[in-house]
Amino acid sequence: MKTDTESHLRMTQRRREGHEKKQASATLEKGLLIVNTGNGKGKSTAAFGMAVRMLGHDERVGIVQFIKGALHTSERDFLGANAKCDFVTMGDGYTWNTQNREADMATARKGWEQAVAMIRSGDYRMVILDELNTVLKYEYLPLDEVLGVLTARAPMQHIVVTGRHAPDALIEAADLVTEMRLVKHPYREQGVKAQRGVEF
Amino acid sequence: MKTDTESHLRMTQRRREGHEKKQASATLEKGLLIVNTGNGKGKSTAAFGMAVRMLGHDERVGIVQFIKGALHTSERDFLGANAKCDFVTMGDGYTWNTQNREADMATARKGWEQAVAMIRSGDYRMVILDELNTVLKYEYLPLDEVLGVLTARAPMQHIVVTGRHAPDALIEAADLVTEMRLVKHPYREQGVKAQRGVEF
Repeated sequence: MKTDTESHLRMTQRRREGHEKKQASATLEKGLLIVNTGNGKGKSTAAFGMAVRMLGHDERVGIVQFIKGALHTSERDFLGANAKCDFVTMGDGYTWNTQNREADMATARKGWEQAVAMIRSGDYRMVILDELNTVLKYEYLPLDEVLGVLTARAPMQHIVVTGRHAPDALIEAADLVTEMRLVKHPYREQGVKAQRGVEF
Repeated sequence: MKTDTESHLRMTQRRREGHEKKQASATLEKGLLIVNTGNGKGKSTAAFGMAVRMLGHDERVGIVQFIKGALHTSERDFLGANAKCDFVTMGDGYTWNTQNREADMATARKGWEQAVAMIRSGDYRMVILDELNTVLKYEYLPLDEVLGVLTARAPMQHIVVTGRHAPDALIEAADLVTEMRLVKHPYREQGVKAQRGVEF
């Protein structure tokens, strides 16, 4: 037990030293291009969680939701009700519901125009572009045009892009990228339906 | 352009059919054991996002935070202020700050007792055990004891466990597992420090 405690002490000391060294060398503040991608859960939820934190710090947040789904309704209600959060929802549901590529492209363009206005206004500390990856994957918007606007943003502005299939060039340009990877899903494996609170 | 539209139409039709078929076969409702693990961001944030949704549906949520860090302060303030959310914070900071295994084990035990009381009370539709994976990884609590309580929960109760290094046996027992995988991090790669709203 003694040895166990001593080895634990050594380990936690090493960890603390490493942590302090890392903290001392990390001094830069900058606006981040953040990407949440992958086939797992939590991409939008984690982005909306950052919005909640920003609002908690009394910073203004803009959100454009490119593909409106049945999910995330509560977050939308909660965030949309906040005076410091502008929440715009585009899209007519999941892409596979519209059956019309031209209409989808027009909707994506409309959403993008609002996103560009938010990004260029300088009014928002964070702009969340929910499901923009999906829009890019379907080539509803030209990737170059989108990357041009994102990389020309104000130096302290954070941008968060969510959705499956983030394009390589966006990952390349990003500062912080997380892949939410599905390991196990009850919908797929057990026939469990989408449930209140868990899925929407 | 015509062909493009037609092929898009065929694709979206196939997707919609697949989606509808999947929805029709997924009819089961049950309490889920949910695990968010991996070395990336968003594990706790996505869990707290589910708490926000549960509260939006007027369901009671219990949260035990096993390792209190500098992060997630805003979520804690927001969720803790809600009358339908009981938020308990244990722990004296990151494990590598305490330098005392016995004290950490006693703290973990105290947190676990509160978690067990929440789970067994039947009062909570969802119980979030934040950073319990880390507690299990350090063997501050016996895995068998924890799994016994989690699997004996009420049939409609959701449990969410977060933290790196989820034990294999927990993943095995879980219904829904997501790995948040770090792809790129500015703290590590660019010396960017933890920033308000993004990290805390």
